[in-house]
Amino acid sequence: MRIALDGMGGDFAPQATVQGAVEAVREYGYHVTLVGQPKLLETQLADLRFRKSLIDIAPATETVGMGESALMIRHKKDSSICVGMELIKQGRVNAFVSCGNTGAVVAAATLNLKPLPGVKRPGIAILLPTLKGVTLVIDVGATIDAKPEHLLQYAVMGVVYSKHILKKPRPTVSLLNIGEEATKGTSLLREAYQVLKESSLDFTGNIEGRDIFSGRADVIVCDGFIGNVVLKVCESLAETTVEFCMRELKRSLLTRVGALLCRPALTSLAREVDYSECGGAPLLGIDGICIIGHGASKPKAIKNALGVAGHFVRYKVNDHIVHEIESIKADTHEV
Amino acid sequence: MRIALDGMGGDFAPQATVQGAVEAVREYGYHVTLVGQPKLLETQLADLRFRKSLIDIAPATETVGMGESALMIRHKKDSSICVGMELIKQGRVNAFVSCGNTGAVVAAATLNLKPLPGVKRPGIAILLPTLKGVTLVIDVGATIDAKPEHLLQYAVMGVVYSKHILKKPRPTVSLLNIGEEATKGTSLLREAYQVLKESSLDFTGNIEGRDIFSGRADVIVCDGFIGNVVLKVCESLAETTVEFCMRELKRSLLTRVGALLCRPALTSLAREVDYSECGGAPLLGIDGICIIGHGASKPKAIKNALGVAGHFVRYKVNDHIVHEIESIKADTHEV
Repeated sequence: MRIALDGMGGDFAPQATVQGAVEAVREYGYHVTLVGQPKLLETQLADLRFRKSLIDIAPATETVGMGESALMIRHKKDSSICVGMELIKQGRVNAFVSCGNTGAVVAAATLNLKPLPGVKRPGIAILLPTLKGVTLVIDVGATIDAKPEHLLQYAVMGVVYSKHILKKPRPTVSLLNIGEEATKGTSLLREAYQVLKESSLDFTGNIEGRDIFSGRADVIVCDGFIGNVVLKVCESLAETTVEFCMRELKRSLLTRVGALLCRPALTSLAREVDYSECGGAPLLGIDGICIIGHGASKPKAIKNALGVAGHFVRYKVNDHIVHEIESIKADTHEV
Repeated sequence: MRIALDGMGGDFAPQATVQGAVEAVREYGYHVTLVGQPKLLETQLADLRFRKSLIDIAPATETVGMGESALMIRHKKDSSICVGMELIKQGRVNAFVSCGNTGAVVAAATLNLKPLPGVKRPGIAILLPTLKGVTLVIDVGATIDAKPEHLLQYAVMGVVYSKHILKKPRPTVSLLNIGEEATKGTSLLREAYQVLKESSLDFTGNIEGRDIFSGRADVIVCDGFIGNVVLKVCESLAETTVEFCMRELKRSLLTRVGALLCRPALTSLAREVDYSECGGAPLLGIDGICIIGHGASKPKAIKNALGVAGHFVRYKVNDHIVHEIESIKADTHEV
C-alpha cells in the first residue's frame, strides 16, 4: 500500500503534513509519498529524524494557494495537487490525500481522473458529528447543478461509504429539504424524492436542516451548492460560538476559574465536534481514491485522513460503488 | 396604536402569549388585541390580574398546529392566524404578530394581504447575532424559486429595515454564494450579482457561508430555499452544541463546579445568540405589518416582537419600502 500526500497543502504545511505522514507510517505501516518541493520536505523530515525507508518524495515545483482560483490547476501542471493526481493516474500510488485548496483538488481530480464506470458526477462527502454518531452529507460542492439522477447516485455512493468505512450495516438515506412532505421544495427535489423512494435504498424521506445534527439519517443527500453553504455555515457558527464563549468567560475571575475547570470537558467536546477527526472528506465517484482534508488540519487530522485512505483501498470501496451503481441502474430500468 | 397578537401561536401559548401581551402593554403602552379562543385567553388574563382596558380579545375558534401543513389555513378560516390577517386587512389593527406555524402565517399573509406596490415577492427577514452586531438575512422561506429581480427587491427591503429599525446609517448588502468571485454559483446568482452591482445599493459582493457570522455584511440576500435550510441548520447546530456541552460537563465533579461558575457568562451568551431576543422575523413586502416570532418564544421574546411591530408602524417602514422599490426601479430603467 502506497499513499500520496500533498506535502504543500493546508494552513500548516509543510510542518503538519510531514509530521502527519510520519505518524501515519508509524501507526499504519503504509508507504507514504510526500508530494511537493523536495528541499522543504526533506528539511522537515530531517528535523523529525525519521528513517526514510517508508517515506519518499515526489517532486512538484509549484503550489496552488488556499485562496487561489481552482482553475489555477490548468496553469500549474507541476503543482503538488496535479502531480498527486498524476501519481494516481499512473497507478504509482493507491490514493491521494490533500489538505490544500478544495476547489483545486476537485478540479484536478475531475480533469485528470475518469469517473467510475456508470457514475455521472463525482460528489464530495463530509462526515458531521451528531448526537448519535456520524452522518455523511453528499455533495458539499463538487457539482452545483445536480439532477435527480445525480442525487440518487450520491445516495448510492454515500451508502457504500457508510457501510464499508463507517461500518453501518444498513445506512438510511434522507434528502435535505425545507419540509418533510414529498411535495416540498424545488422541482428538482420533488423529482429526486420520487426517484429515491422508488429505489432499493433505505430512503426515509426528506430531512430538514434542523434535523441534520439529530443523527436521524446516516446519509443526507443534497445539491453541491446547498451542501457547500451548509458546511461553511456550520464551521462558521461553531467558531463564532467558541469566540462568543471565550469573550464572555474572560469577563470575571469566577468565570475564568470556571473555564479552567471546564477545559477538559470542552476539549473533549471540541474533539468530538471537530470533523477533521473523522479523517477528511472523500471525493466519491472518480476512478482513483482522493481524500480532501480540512485546510486547518493538524498532524493528527492528516494522519487520520491517511488512515481513511488506507481503509478506502483495503475495503475496495470503489469496486463496491461501481457494483451498486450498476445494480441501481438495473432497478431503475425495471421500474 | 393597536397591535394584534396570535394568542394561540407558539409552543407555550396561551400562557406565554398572554403574559407577553401584558408585558408589552406595560412597557410600550400599546393597545394589544389577543386573537384566539376567548375562554382560554380570558382565564390566562384573569390569572395575571391585569386591568383589561388596553387588551381586548378577537375571537377565533380554530388553531393551526405547529406541525400542520401551511395549506390548512385554507380550511381553517376561523383560525387565529386567518382572523389576525383579517384584522389587518380591515384596518382594525396596525400590525399582527404570531409565533405560530411560520408557513401558515406566510401563506395567510400572501393570500389575504396584497403585496406592497411594486413588490413582486414578499420575503421573510431574520436577524442573526454576529461578532459585530446583528446581520439581517432575507429570504428565509417565503419564496423558493426567486429570480434576480426578487433578490434585488429583498436587498432593498432589508436595507430599509436595517436603516429604520436597526438604525444602521448605510447598510451594506451581500449575496450568499459559494465563493467570492462574480462568476461563482448558479446562473441565478451570477445574474443577481450583476443586478445588485449595477444598483444604487452599497453592494459588497458575494459572501460565503463561513462569513455569515463575521458581521461583515449588514444585509445578506438569498433564495428562500437556501435561507430556510441555513436558518434551520443554525438553530440545530446551536442546540446540538449546548447538548454536547451539558453531556460533557456532567461527567465529573470538577467540571460540574466549573459549569456552575461559568453559568452567568453562558447565560449572557445564550441571550446574545438567542435570536428571539431580536424581536421576531418580519415578513417584508406585504401591504400590512406581520412579524413572525419563534415557535419557542417565551413572554419576553413575545414582548420584544410586539415592540418591533410598534417600531415598524411608527417609523413607517412600509412607506419607505414602497419609495425605495420605486426609485430602484427607476434606476434600473435608466441603465
